[in-house]
Amino acid sequence: MRPYEKDPKAIYAQSFATVRKEARLDRFGAGMQSLAIRLIHACGMVEVADRLAFSPEAYARGHAALLAGKPVLCDCEMVGAGIIRRYLPRNNEVIVTLNDDTVPARATAIANTRSAAAVELWADHLEGAVVAIGNAPTALFHLLELIDQGAPKPALILGFPVGFVGAAESKAELAANPRGCDFIALKGRRGGSAIASAAVNALAAGLPEIAGGRQ
Amino acid sequence: MRPYEKDPKAIYAQSFATVRKEARLDRFGAGMQSLAIRLIHACGMVEVADRLAFSPEAYARGHAALLAGKPVLCDCEMVGAGIIRRYLPRNNEVIVTLNDDTVPARATAIANTRSAAAVELWADHLEGAVVAIGNAPTALFHLLELIDQGAPKPALILGFPVGFVGAAESKAELAANPRGCDFIALKGRRGGSAIASAAVNALAAGLPEIAGGRQ
Repeated sequence: MRPYEKDPKAIYAQSFATVRKEARLDRFGAGMQSLAIRLIHACGMVEVADRLAFSPEAYARGHAALLAGKPVLCDCEMVGAGIIRRYLPRNNEVIVTLNDDTVPARATAIANTRSAAAVELWADHLEGAVVAIGNAPTALFHLLELIDQGAPKPALILGFPVGFVGAAESKAELAANPRGCDFIALKGRRGGSAIASAAVNALAAGLPEIAGGRQ
Repeated sequence: MRPYEKDPKAIYAQSFATVRKEARLDRFGAGMQSLAIRLIHACGMVEVADRLAFSPEAYARGHAALLAGKPVLCDCEMVGAGIIRRYLPRNNEVIVTLNDDTVPARATAIANTRSAAAVELWADHLEGAVVAIGNAPTALFHLLELIDQGAPKPALILGFPVGFVGAAESKAELAANPRGCDFIALKGRRGGSAIASAAVNALAAGLPEIAGGRQ
């Protein structure tokens, strides 16, 4: 068996150092830089830094929303599972409605996916919240439709749906017209729940695993 | 708002058709082909098909293990959260030990990460099981060490740890010496929990979302 690094602090420090060395991070402020580093760390690809679209105040507004105790609304259980609860500054609620009993009937009623139907159950929590979409393009599309129809606006939309049908398009729609919300999105097909969770963890705590990383 | 596809069946069919069109799948048998398609679908990157390493009987043995009612052992909660329970043929147990109360002390005792310590708690479930590692290189390394020390052997090791320290190396170790287990691994830095879950879902059910996909 080959030798390997077993010390979690050394692993994090070496990982983040490699990311800083290889990724192009100079266009980001400090907050977005920590977020980009966590995203890269979650997927193993330094080049995703070049594909991030974001509004100028996205990190600050998302961080402030968490400090204000606003909830995190996730489109699937995996995103919720990846959020490191001890990093959340106000023991913020993490809400996933996808498996609510009413979702299948609602999906049929609105002729959309279960992921889209689940977004309708966010209504009472949306105002000023952080939305983390790491799976379904239809969840992001339908959120934007609901906002167009007058739904409350989240503070920040993290747009990381993944795949071959609607992912690139839903993120392009978000970036082209964020409806007055702040946003961070990974352009193109790539995305996923690990990346969405990583973005939330970065908003919550920066890079607390290493010396000098804000917690 | 631009129009978008809202029908889940159409979304799946179009997604899988795009993957089949763009990815190089001809080196795979039917089972591994469905697995490669699910992996690509989970991460949005057709090129990962070219980076899959696997033993010839990996799909068949993993599928048989699930049919035999063996558990799925996951290195983190996200992997467990991504396993579609209704696809599992025997209501198989999905086991995640990372957050067991004894793990932090055990990690200190063995001078390794919590992820590695959590693997030691799998001992009673390992024989003939499916192991799905989607996060921690140290979990994969330590599993191999335990097998070297005489631990029971899983039927199949799904090696998808991600990142910059140990991910590529642990998967290279697995592929170079799988210790008599079958294995599937994504070479290099890329991996992650969504990919690991997708592999389990493929072993369980193939591509049941589309006509002709085995369930």
